[in-house]
Amino acid sequence: MINENNNISYGNKDKKNNTQIINQNFIDNKNINFTVTPWEVKGDIDYNKLIEKFGTFEITTNIIEQFKKITGEIHPFLKNKYFFSHRDLDWILKEYQNGNKFYLYTGRGPSGLIHLGHLMPWLFTKYIQDKFNVKLLFQLTDDEKFLFNDKNDLEMIDIFTYENVLDIIAIGFDSAKTNIIIDTKHINYLYPISLEIAKRITFSTAKSVFGFSNSSNIGMIGFPPIQSAPCFLPSVIEKKPTPVLIPAAIDQDPYWRITRDIAEKIGYYKPAQIHSKFIPGLINNGKMSSSKPDSALFTKDDPELIEKKVKNTFTGGQPTVSLQRKLGGNADICPVYWYLKYLFDNEEESIQRYNNCKGGSLLCGDCKNDLIKDVKPFIKDIQRKREKAKDMIKEFMIDGKDLGHKDKK
Amino acid sequence: MINENNNISYGNKDKKNNTQIINQNFIDNKNINFTVTPWEVKGDIDYNKLIEKFGTFEITTNIIEQFKKITGEIHPFLKNKYFFSHRDLDWILKEYQNGNKFYLYTGRGPSGLIHLGHLMPWLFTKYIQDKFNVKLLFQLTDDEKFLFNDKNDLEMIDIFTYENVLDIIAIGFDSAKTNIIIDTKHINYLYPISLEIAKRITFSTAKSVFGFSNSSNIGMIGFPPIQSAPCFLPSVIEKKPTPVLIPAAIDQDPYWRITRDIAEKIGYYKPAQIHSKFIPGLINNGKMSSSKPDSALFTKDDPELIEKKVKNTFTGGQPTVSLQRKLGGNADICPVYWYLKYLFDNEEESIQRYNNCKGGSLLCGDCKNDLIKDVKPFIKDIQRKREKAKDMIKEFMIDGKDLGHKDKK
Repeated sequence: MINENNNISYGNKDKKNNTQIINQNFIDNKNINFTVTPWEVKGDIDYNKLIEKFGTFEITTNIIEQFKKITGEIHPFLKNKYFFSHRDLDWILKEYQNGNKFYLYTGRGPSGLIHLGHLMPWLFTKYIQDKFNVKLLFQLTDDEKFLFNDKNDLEMIDIFTYENVLDIIAIGFDSAKTNIIIDTKHINYLYPISLEIAKRITFSTAKSVFGFSNSSNIGMIGFPPIQSAPCFLPSVIEKKPTPVLIPAAIDQDPYWRITRDIAEKIGYYKPAQIHSKFIPGLINNGKMSSSKPDSALFTKDDPELIEKKVKNTFTGGQPTVSLQRKLGGNADICPVYWYLKYLFDNEEESIQRYNNCKGGSLLCGDCKNDLIKDVKPFIKDIQRKREKAKDMIKEFMIDGKDLGHKDKK
Repeated sequence: MINENNNISYGNKDKKNNTQIINQNFIDNKNINFTVTPWEVKGDIDYNKLIEKFGTFEITTNIIEQFKKITGEIHPFLKNKYFFSHRDLDWILKEYQNGNKFYLYTGRGPSGLIHLGHLMPWLFTKYIQDKFNVKLLFQLTDDEKFLFNDKNDLEMIDIFTYENVLDIIAIGFDSAKTNIIIDTKHINYLYPISLEIAKRITFSTAKSVFGFSNSSNIGMIGFPPIQSAPCFLPSVIEKKPTPVLIPAAIDQDPYWRITRDIAEKIGYYKPAQIHSKFIPGLINNGKMSSSKPDSALFTKDDPELIEKKVKNTFTGGQPTVSLQRKLGGNADICPVYWYLKYLFDNEEESIQRYNNCKGGSLLCGDCKNDLIKDVKPFIKDIQRKREKAKDMIKEFMIDGKDLGHKDKK
């Protein structure tokens, strides 16, 4: 079906040979003290330096204007730069305007329950699906989560996969335009494509991009093409080369980098990407982590627990009220401020909150109360939708079949 | 389903740590001048040295007697040592006698058409299926043939897969007790098991056993667990640890070696093996190769072509009739003698043929005529059965579905 000589060329060139060695850990560099890989995010992330290191492109005001021409508005996640970086997004938008519709593709590694940090790129993905009227592939990489962590067994991951599927459906994606792919269950949709990809990536390349070593298991080494395959599945489904746009946090970029490098060789478009930042947990800095349960607000948490977690969280405020009044707080490092900004405050409210915090007129307790007031009904609404989702699973699965799970609640 | 603590121990221990470095090419060793890997067989193979190098076990007269107790006879392939080596065959027979039935598992890499050399282990596999009344998994590793050869594309391999399936069915396996697995089509049956295997094999081990390097593609590195998975699929199907016996040429041993090393760690029996020798092509020495079309007798060859090929073939005879009469021939290196011995002559006829050749009273033309007389109706019969096989495909496939191939004849 795929013509190997069909060399498609378009859009932005990649800034460098993607397969060159990428530092796995930027901490060695004296100007950079953070780590961003598909398996680890830590440190104080400088997103401008990340764009430079990964060789991606900033989302410029020009691109945001291109969006506005189609959607009639500017989504807050673009305005507030939660989505900040891209590859070929301008090309995707131009193709769309010329009538060449893209597929969305995003994913989730089901190693735990879903928290607010996970939902943010999904909310944006739903927004794009609605505004552009496009199809979505949503991949759950249960195989990856099994292979990359000694402690994970398939039975445990299976439970999280089921729970995560309920959250995905609860977000409100259009079942007629969304296919969920669970790797261990729907591998037959991906495997032939993954072979075409795997054949064109040497161990040497995979080692450079992902940091594999002699002690890596061969499942890890063989895995990346399984995550690449949905980039090309739309072309197989539509029986013609079909553009794909991937909304995801920027830590997944290494996967798309190697995928882009081989795409044209096998007659497909390079997948375009739109990269989000990470949102910190409520206690620790860094990406909100589902492996540190106390640090995150989970969609399955009881509203009372949510309230307790927010009240106990780390903020950017001063140790005492009088110091806060005198010195002001630091909203830039405050997850309570960030959650309000990204999920609940409008632009004006957020600016006012930032200034009042800095000026010392706003106390941490005030912001925490605001967040509790907003987040409790938000989570309750998701919980209602998760219940309904239990009867909608087969409408979303790529094979049209149910998962056969009993409710684990 | 599988209990990780269920440590099963039994039968022969492996002679050495299977994962130690195995010479990929024995030619470096001054006493050994042959190569045997899953991808290459060349040189003058000394099967006793192969047993020593691979750490397998000779099939002793004791084991042959164990067979006879069950089957009431000694199969010619055991008597004439076409099957010459094993791992845990004695254990498999003992378990069988105690009521613990095994599954057979064998396979084929569908990179070309089927010739007589391929049929021999299949004929023995069918014999075991009939005599022991056991189930068989037959795997077609179309993915392997794609990944390990730059020239192969999936479309071409798909055609050979279809043709090979017809040959497998033509052999006469019992459809009620046989499941054919084509990797790219039935990967969903293998993938979850293959992950359990892949997680327990490091790149370091795979490099030692298979000779992978930095320039190996990551599909090759990720492949071995896909060939290992059918060793454990019977345990999943039967919902209890189930012994497996693999009849196959000894070049496949590295796959089973790594599989045996991890089997008990994940609660399965180590797969047992019975290894065959290679049968030379009709022109070249070494394994009959489907990539050298002139050298082999294919099941799709017209009977006239078969006759022509046999007449033109290399033999162990002398250059002239008078020299043959004077010096005698060398049956040990003669593929015409071998094919008659392994497929058509009975024991007595074969000994007589050997002695008459050595003594100079039998000429190459005589043996060639004998082979032509036997092989033409043999191949015609297979061709009749291949035609019937076209309507039987779905009875054999593990998913019960047809392959949807038009006849490519």
